[in-house]
Amino acid sequence: MPHTDAVNVAQKFSMFEDHWHPRLIARVNDTDVKITKLQGEFHWHQHDNEDELFFVIKGRLLMQFRDRDVWLEPGELIVVPRGVEHKPVAPEEVHLLLVEPSGTLNTGNVVNERTIAELEWI
Amino acid sequence: MPHTDAVNVAQKFSMFEDHWHPRLIARVNDTDVKITKLQGEFHWHQHDNEDELFFVIKGRLLMQFRDRDVWLEPGELIVVPRGVEHKPVAPEEVHLLLVEPSGTLNTGNVVNERTIAELEWI
Repeated sequence: MPHTDAVNVAQKFSMFEDHWHPRLIARVNDTDVKITKLQGEFHWHQHDNEDELFFVIKGRLLMQFRDRDVWLEPGELIVVPRGVEHKPVAPEEVHLLLVEPSGTLNTGNVVNERTIAELEWI
Repeated sequence: MPHTDAVNVAQKFSMFEDHWHPRLIARVNDTDVKITKLQGEFHWHQHDNEDELFFVIKGRLLMQFRDRDVWLEPGELIVVPRGVEHKPVAPEEVHLLLVEPSGTLNTGNVVNERTIAELEWI
């Protein structure tokens, strides 16, 4: 039987301090569940083929779209559909859980110094 | 642009009272995010093709496998791999968030009075 233990999300967040660096905590068929800490501004980008779910665990997240802003409190989530430009902004530190298809690149259609090519399990 | 608003998970839980009846709150490509309340015992079942993620929002969930028990506290999750028999037990009420492929039947390989054939959005 595959390994199926309880995963404590807060404990996983305690294992790293850096920002904008997602780690994998679970996989459901072809979908990944990742966690990351955010602080400051990301860049505008989009994912051509993947919807992306953002679930705020701690802090307040501003999700900017080209035509409007959406604020997310802890316990709130949003799905950014494929093809939609967005820019996450975290004025204070945010703990974020992501649900997205396996293989989704964190920086979407932009490749820069924040691009995480090799996703690691924690 | 598709509708992309913030979803407050606690507010969604406040919209229903019944148990063992998942509702859809988000979709990410071909994966569904559902919420349900649990109380009491479910039956033994498995999903032949779908992994199933259980994330406990409130209460304590006992996930029974044929060879062992796993207790889940709020803020903890577990992935039950496809093909693995399991039985969720909630001695007290549990608020649960589920991540699983679209089309996953709540009762798995068993069809009974708890089977939810038509999933509704809330």
